[in-house]
Amino acid sequence: MEEAKKRFLMIKARHKETYEQALNQGKVDIQMQKLCSFVAETKKYYTSSCCSGRIVLLEKKSDKKIDSYFHRKWHRTITKKELLEGFNEKVEGDLWFKVDSFILHIGTDSIENAQKIIMTMKEAGVKRGGIILAEKGKVILEIIGTDSMSFPVKKKGKKMFENKYLEKILGEANKILERNYTRLEKLENKFEKNLE
Amino acid sequence: MEEAKKRFLMIKARHKETYEQALNQGKVDIQMQKLCSFVAETKKYYTSSCCSGRIVLLEKKSDKKIDSYFHRKWHRTITKKELLEGFNEKVEGDLWFKVDSFILHIGTDSIENAQKIIMTMKEAGVKRGGIILAEKGKVILEIIGTDSMSFPVKKKGKKMFENKYLEKILGEANKILERNYTRLEKLENKFEKNLE
Repeated sequence: MEEAKKRFLMIKARHKETYEQALNQGKVDIQMQKLCSFVAETKKYYTSSCCSGRIVLLEKKSDKKIDSYFHRKWHRTITKKELLEGFNEKVEGDLWFKVDSFILHIGTDSIENAQKIIMTMKEAGVKRGGIILAEKGKVILEIIGTDSMSFPVKKKGKKMFENKYLEKILGEANKILERNYTRLEKLENKFEKNLE
Repeated sequence: MEEAKKRFLMIKARHKETYEQALNQGKVDIQMQKLCSFVAETKKYYTSSCCSGRIVLLEKKSDKKIDSYFHRKWHRTITKKELLEGFNEKVEGDLWFKVDSFILHIGTDSIENAQKIIMTMKEAGVKRGGIILAEKGKVILEIIGTDSMSFPVKKKGKKMFENKYLEKILGEANKILERNYTRLEKLENKFEKNLE
């Protein structure tokens, strides 16, 4: 067996194992499980990391990502009560309200098979994604949804808005997250149709 | 000369011409000109489209991108007066306030040279980007900044916020756009260092 193929099979097996462990420990987002489990069973692909999309209150103690902390994080639509409870709780830094779309890292063995993912992604109406690493036997793609929202709600711990404004936005935020999950389902269906 | 090489040289020449026309007609964002002009002079790369980043009031008449219209668009930081003038003006659909980070499409001749772009992008601290097309003689990358903000400010033509809240956000928005331009400059410097 040639080196590149050997390398691919080894990496795929390792990721499959890691994925199954995470699944058993309840660490894989529910909305992502069907897609990831399907990919794990294909011959040519594996997932190396994934998030189904989420609503987040993110505390930023500086502009650097390393100084960001999840104040609250939900992988589902939320209620006003949940949001306000998080919003009212004290933080020191800035606080951002965010809807993050899904993100998915998929590995494969060749540029040709990576192209199949890009084609499938487009078929599902997912606009953002591409090959982020291309080595012999190790080609990694990143695929990202575009249903998102993001803006600051506290500045140095102080509210920039009254609660009622945040409540108004929440309806939109939940709708965007639902749309994100629908898109993810569509992607999963296309994967099942196109990938071996 | 082999087919793939011929194809690449033809595509590169065409894009260089299109770019120079756009430049002469004042259609290239000022903050993007130095980077694009440098890339046009390299041997192995060309830009096929680019936006330096912007502040936008986007009208959405439905959830589909095709039903979105620029109500206002600025490729620079803006004043409260400019923002409120756009915010106060009547729209029919929903209105979103957005800071869009830069986006850049670069073409090259091979996966190897595309990998050089990805490496350079990472050196500059740009986290999002990859190969979105990989054909013989035509490899296209998309590179996107992550300094952004995005949320709805009108629902079916009706304000969701009073003016004063939007004014508060603007300071943050301008800061994010400045950070985006700084990142773009850093990317340009790394391009000049790494690309032939």
